[in-house]
Amino acid sequence: MAAQGPLTPSAAYGMISISEAQAIVLEHCRVLPVERVPTHEAVGMVCAEAVVAKDPLPPFPASIKDGYAVVASDGPGEYPLVGEALAGTSGSLKVEPGTVAYITTGAPLPPGADAVVMIEQTEALAPGDDGRKRVKVNKGVVAGADVRPVGVDIGCGTVILHPGDRIGIAEVGLAGSVGAAAVSAYRRPCVAVLSNGDEIVSSDTASLGPGQIRDSNRPMLLAAARETGALVTDMGIVGDKQGSLEETFEKAIQDGADVIITSGGVSMGARDLIKPLLEKKGTIYFGKVCMKPGKPLTFATIEDSGSGRTILVFALPGNPVSSYACFHLVVASALRKCQGWREPSLRRVHVRLSSAAKMDSGRPEFQRARIHWESDGEGAGQFVAKGTGSQLSSRLLSALSANALLEIPQGTGEVPSGATVSAVLVDDLRHMSLQ
Amino acid sequence: MAAQGPLTPSAAYGMISISEAQAIVLEHCRVLPVERVPTHEAVGMVCAEAVVAKDPLPPFPASIKDGYAVVASDGPGEYPLVGEALAGTSGSLKVEPGTVAYITTGAPLPPGADAVVMIEQTEALAPGDDGRKRVKVNKGVVAGADVRPVGVDIGCGTVILHPGDRIGIAEVGLAGSVGAAAVSAYRRPCVAVLSNGDEIVSSDTASLGPGQIRDSNRPMLLAAARETGALVTDMGIVGDKQGSLEETFEKAIQDGADVIITSGGVSMGARDLIKPLLEKKGTIYFGKVCMKPGKPLTFATIEDSGSGRTILVFALPGNPVSSYACFHLVVASALRKCQGWREPSLRRVHVRLSSAAKMDSGRPEFQRARIHWESDGEGAGQFVAKGTGSQLSSRLLSALSANALLEIPQGTGEVPSGATVSAVLVDDLRHMSLQ
Ligand SMILES: [Mg+2]
Ligand SMILES: [Mg+2]
Repeated sequence: MAAQGPLTPSAAYGMISISEAQAIVLEHCRVLPVERVPTHEAVGMVCAEAVVAKDPLPPFPASIKDGYAVVASDGPGEYPLVGEALAGTSGSLKVEPGTVAYITTGAPLPPGADAVVMIEQTEALAPGDDGRKRVKVNKGVVAGADVRPVGVDIGCGTVILHPGDRIGIAEVGLAGSVGAAAVSAYRRPCVAVLSNGDEIVSSDTASLGPGQIRDSNRPMLLAAARETGALVTDMGIVGDKQGSLEETFEKAIQDGADVIITSGGVSMGARDLIKPLLEKKGTIYFGKVCMKPGKPLTFATIEDSGSGRTILVFALPGNPVSSYACFHLVVASALRKCQGWREPSLRRVHVRLSSAAKMDSGRPEFQRARIHWESDGEGAGQFVAKGTGSQLSSRLLSALSANALLEIPQGTGEVPSGATVSAVLVDDLRHMSLQ
Repeated sequence: MAAQGPLTPSAAYGMISISEAQAIVLEHCRVLPVERVPTHEAVGMVCAEAVVAKDPLPPFPASIKDGYAVVASDGPGEYPLVGEALAGTSGSLKVEPGTVAYITTGAPLPPGADAVVMIEQTEALAPGDDGRKRVKVNKGVVAGADVRPVGVDIGCGTVILHPGDRIGIAEVGLAGSVGAAAVSAYRRPCVAVLSNGDEIVSSDTASLGPGQIRDSNRPMLLAAARETGALVTDMGIVGDKQGSLEETFEKAIQDGADVIITSGGVSMGARDLIKPLLEKKGTIYFGKVCMKPGKPLTFATIEDSGSGRTILVFALPGNPVSSYACFHLVVASALRKCQGWREPSLRRVHVRLSSAAKMDSGRPEFQRARIHWESDGEGAGQFVAKGTGSQLSSRLLSALSANALLEIPQGTGEVPSGATVSAVLVDDLRHMSLQ
């Protein structure tokens, strides 16, 4: 009878450390192909080909100030005004020695002029006998004063974006400034997410039947994958039937998934069907990791003979906190590597505990915490971590507003309040609490 | 002639400090109305109404392990197997004293049983004389062992999300676990962005005409606003004509803009038309801020009599770095406040300078930097800032890969290498360099 004894091969998986697991996963991630993307849609992507400035910036000597274009050697004095150099206009205006031209910020310096005197250092005078407007320059300037020379911001041929640069806000601006309306970037991974378990019902189920619980993992993992820049596909809830699971995997692969994320079905029970399916369809690299939560975390690849692609499969445990932690500790880095990140691995900081953290004797534990920056009042400061209550792996409330996973070493007793520990960042610290 | 002397009222604006500017802006931001949003579309939004659990989680006593449901007081021994309790199934199975039932992780504990013995502590035996399967339990357990009691994760009536909680990844999972398919959240602001200047041409212009430069600010500011969660509208490039500017403002307001961001046209030149337009159409609160870069930063509100709305207008200087810095230092917090953030203001940390930072004698300076976390090798660490080259306000390359703005105080000389300064976070530190 299938209901007794070690029922799946799961028991056969040796336990590896979390750092081994992370290394194995990154080793199997291939950077995705390069595609051409309109720059404004490339935010968050990684540049795959250098973007080079074909023109210098500024392309002409440009005024830094509103004021008068002058010949510096003329020095202070009263000069006739020969015209206006306004930004965006071009004309035949020329500044001869002994004359000045009005100029606005960003306008090209007229030929003949070699400096700008800001308007605050000048006075408008009444027109002279010849009817020409005149200006009094109160301050001498050196040649080049308040003029941006050609190419001072960006020299012609400057590499604006290097392969491997992440395209953020400033990078979008930079690409715009050199006319790069599109960039070559590593494709975003297509990530298919499913929840597995006969007990799981959709999160919008109003009343639960006997033995049912609502799906929290699928919406959470879809949001998490999207946050890393992935394109996501919701594969729904799949019951504990090998056939349905296999069909769903086939469909995800047909639809172009680069990565499949499942939750549930990776324990040792009679209906834990994910590991057997992965053994059948691909290669499992690990099925048990020495971490709390998340021990049954499983990683496999499936070769798609049709397309020649290798699909990465992350089979996360069903407990919501286990799913949450495994995503941040293992899946996120993989998705980053696929997208061409130079340094895909975890970002860590050190944080001071504001309360003691109990250690687990069997496994290193990743405790959810809220960290914030505390000033010491003397010009420096440090991160301080607040705990998030019971760390039960089923209790997702422990991840509410969490922005870090504290790395609590395996051991007996507790890490005392006030001690410093390492923490993995799992949220944008521009949201961290101010106290 | 319009080209001489102080030509716009700009010169009349008194200079205020950056902290005054930030306070004035936040004072004029109203939190936007609440709307009902499907939870999976609410990531990044702020919860406006409490989300309460209507059921306990788990809704039934649930097994934590794969193993056998037992009557704890039976203790170790050999017992007949009376059936299976699988996750997601319900039946009439009952565990009488002296019997056991197979159970999987997450399955409801059958009536009569009060504990679970994990499968590793049991052995499957050959069927007994009566043909019934039998199990040897090798370990005694206490009542409640490996069972999650009803409501242990989420008690019935628990507030899962409080008003003011930001909806992140875990929050999406939590909402799912209690069946909240939609949430009430503060509406995202509609932000209209335009660039102003006769010299500005679209960033996809292949060859520049005389006096022209490409638009970097508009794509950059659209991306920046979008990153804060705003819905953005591209209003294009508007030349130095009061009529065109006014029409574009009218259109943005008609189209529902809550916020208008402009760049360029806020200096003292003859064609700096933004301040005069804002004076005509609304109220300017400041037009000069003691900061480098960004001095001409201007903030105004416009009342839309039609809709009764107050539109916030941020008129940023045209220099790309000034726009970049003003967005992060002033606009971002405003967009956050509109979206209901509890603490909209800037996030700061302290960082060690890896090279000296020159001070400006007239204004505090916000220097772009790349910060990363450096371990001291003894279990603690600190942020270290690397400079990004010339801090010229036109040189957007100084913002390439920057994730912080160093707050360099006004003064003479320099802040030495190795000194600690305050820094404003302007990027997600999950992208920070690892060294
Ligand atoms: Mg299951
Ligand atoms: Mg202008």
